[in-house]
Amino acid sequence: MNSIAALRIPERILMGPGPSNAPPSVLAAMSRPLVGHLDPAFVAMMEEIKAMLRQVFITRNEMTFPVSGTGSAGMEFCFVNLLEPGDEAVIGVNGVFGQRMADVAARCGATVIKVEAEWGRIIEPDAIATALAKATRPKLVAIVHAETSTGALTPVEEISRLTHQAGAMLVLDTVTSLGGCPVRIDDWQVDAVYSGTQKCLSCPPGLSPVSLSERAMQSVRARTHRVQSWYLDVSLLASYWGDGQRVYHHTAPISMNYALHESLRLLLEEGLENRWARHERHHRALHAGLAMLGLSIVSQTGHQLWQLNAVGVPAGVDEAVVRARLLNEFGIEVGAGLGPLKGKIWRVGLMGHTSSLDNVRTLLAALGQILGDAGQRVNVQDALAAATAAAAVD
Amino acid sequence: MNSIAALRIPERILMGPGPSNAPPSVLAAMSRPLVGHLDPAFVAMMEEIKAMLRQVFITRNEMTFPVSGTGSAGMEFCFVNLLEPGDEAVIGVNGVFGQRMADVAARCGATVIKVEAEWGRIIEPDAIATALAKATRPKLVAIVHAETSTGALTPVEEISRLTHQAGAMLVLDTVTSLGGCPVRIDDWQVDAVYSGTQKCLSCPPGLSPVSLSERAMQSVRARTHRVQSWYLDVSLLASYWGDGQRVYHHTAPISMNYALHESLRLLLEEGLENRWARHERHHRALHAGLAMLGLSIVSQTGHQLWQLNAVGVPAGVDEAVVRARLLNEFGIEVGAGLGPLKGKIWRVGLMGHTSSLDNVRTLLAALGQILGDAGQRVNVQDALAAATAAAAVD
Repeated sequence: MNSIAALRIPERILMGPGPSNAPPSVLAAMSRPLVGHLDPAFVAMMEEIKAMLRQVFITRNEMTFPVSGTGSAGMEFCFVNLLEPGDEAVIGVNGVFGQRMADVAARCGATVIKVEAEWGRIIEPDAIATALAKATRPKLVAIVHAETSTGALTPVEEISRLTHQAGAMLVLDTVTSLGGCPVRIDDWQVDAVYSGTQKCLSCPPGLSPVSLSERAMQSVRARTHRVQSWYLDVSLLASYWGDGQRVYHHTAPISMNYALHESLRLLLEEGLENRWARHERHHRALHAGLAMLGLSIVSQTGHQLWQLNAVGVPAGVDEAVVRARLLNEFGIEVGAGLGPLKGKIWRVGLMGHTSSLDNVRTLLAALGQILGDAGQRVNVQDALAAATAAAAVD
Repeated sequence: MNSIAALRIPERILMGPGPSNAPPSVLAAMSRPLVGHLDPAFVAMMEEIKAMLRQVFITRNEMTFPVSGTGSAGMEFCFVNLLEPGDEAVIGVNGVFGQRMADVAARCGATVIKVEAEWGRIIEPDAIATALAKATRPKLVAIVHAETSTGALTPVEEISRLTHQAGAMLVLDTVTSLGGCPVRIDDWQVDAVYSGTQKCLSCPPGLSPVSLSERAMQSVRARTHRVQSWYLDVSLLASYWGDGQRVYHHTAPISMNYALHESLRLLLEEGLENRWARHERHHRALHAGLAMLGLSIVSQTGHQLWQLNAVGVPAGVDEAVVRARLLNEFGIEVGAGLGPLKGKIWRVGLMGHTSSLDNVRTLLAALGQILGDAGQRVNVQDALAAATAAAAVD
């Protein structure tokens, strides 16, 4: 064959829907020499990862660990373990990831009751209450906390109250929220939660932190059908990630766990509240700067994510051309809209390590130049000043 | 909380059942800065990975790519896509991974017909023929090429002939064989194959290279039930890994793909045949050296793997004590026996980068010292000389 050249990878500022940029020490952790998945040094590290994940999820759940796959594997982990054929699942659908949950739940043989909302809006507690009233014996309610496809943040507490009142369990997608805004698993009485590493944890993609409440584990123990996935069966995974003797299940992704360890360590060193405040601050800066460029964030007012911003594309602008110029001329990745929002928004991520005033300013300057070239009247200097001023408020 | 210290990872010579040691350039690839999973640079790299995987599997199968999970996810990928409820699956069980295949197939709703053999022995074509004769309409036959739990290598060609004669598809586990000994997917008419990155490819664990024949894809297209796993549904994965426009499915593990790219590149640079010959040579060296220490490889004669050696534990020796001393005093990991072989064998891996004469000699010297301390009469010098002489034969 013609020999293939060593990999050349461009440098990017990752301001899309994820992955975000990983800090240097997280990248460095990935290149540590390998040890075995049953090595005492690795087992000790697993304990630290579990302890740190409990702090980040703000939970005491024993069953808290990273699934060996990306966020969608974590989603599937929750549903295959909690659902059995014939179970009723009430699922909030206000974007791509709500749709995906409904798809995954249906593949588990569940009867899915969708609670739909316009993309960009939140799932309202009333709509959940109505769906629960229609169900015979709902097993669970599932919602996406931070919809990566729309930039909307659905409040959890009232939905949780309604869910438990109906005798159901609550499943929460925190792929984009964890580490970027408050996520309180025990306070909110979430029974099953999954996340991803490549968003606000700023770790490369490849693992999905999950946590199951004791109630969820009881429901697993009471199953009458085997879990349809061997790879994601929590009872088998517990024998490897649990507290007793480590029994081989599958070979854990060693290097990915090194990186997760380092990224969680950095997060706790910064402090959860400080990390959340940093995300809020740079969202505010972006918002202020965009306004000066005549742009706005289009997801539901009062429920806009700090870490993922749905920026409306101005009339007459070809969003794909702008995205391509950002990538090719400025090395900046932003995301496209999906589904009904295709062509209508850019998705601008300010997640984890990427959430900095420098990055906000770099994006505003690049966007200003491109929009100016496209004939829009923009004042970049004002945009930068507004962003800087907004970030300075505490 | 008490802050958690940065990771400290000991250096190990990984001579267990995997992971093997990764070469420096593969580890370095893991720490490259991230790009997005739809970045043109990443998409170009995906094409190179697919092309290189086809060369390593020796196949023209269009549908050849890495699943975003470890080897067991690749196993599940093959079964969930090929099996529907009620299908018959004939599965060879001569170790842990055959058992696992039977478990996974049953979770797909299949009727499993097990073909069992003693652990350490191969699956005989006659036994497959007998099972196929008993089946009504067998959908597939599945065997483990290289049983990592026993060190036995089952020949594929005759079983493939019988399988296709019966109108069934052949599924092959090459987790431990790929890159370490001949694997010829097209010549052997294998319909579905999976592997792992952390064995003879010498890449960190976390991805599972798979390949499906056109016949397997036709069977997927003819399904009447949806694939029970969303994460592993090949029709959805094809929209991301296929040849058309890249449609987002899940966020690929970026860094793991960097590492796989580099490890495949190194493999093809060495040459497949050279790589196989290296594995054979160092197996021979280990075999000769062990003989001088009074030790032998216990899996079926004539079918012993080069890359994973089942070494019999001498009477009166506590295998766990020896393993612990190897790890703690010499930094060498070897594997324990599993199932009926627990306490009876050590599993000594010589996989990928780990397969070197230096490593064989280092292990023989350490093992000789430990066995001597335990009162066995051993001559380390003779063992080293025998290993060196055996490796010199070409």
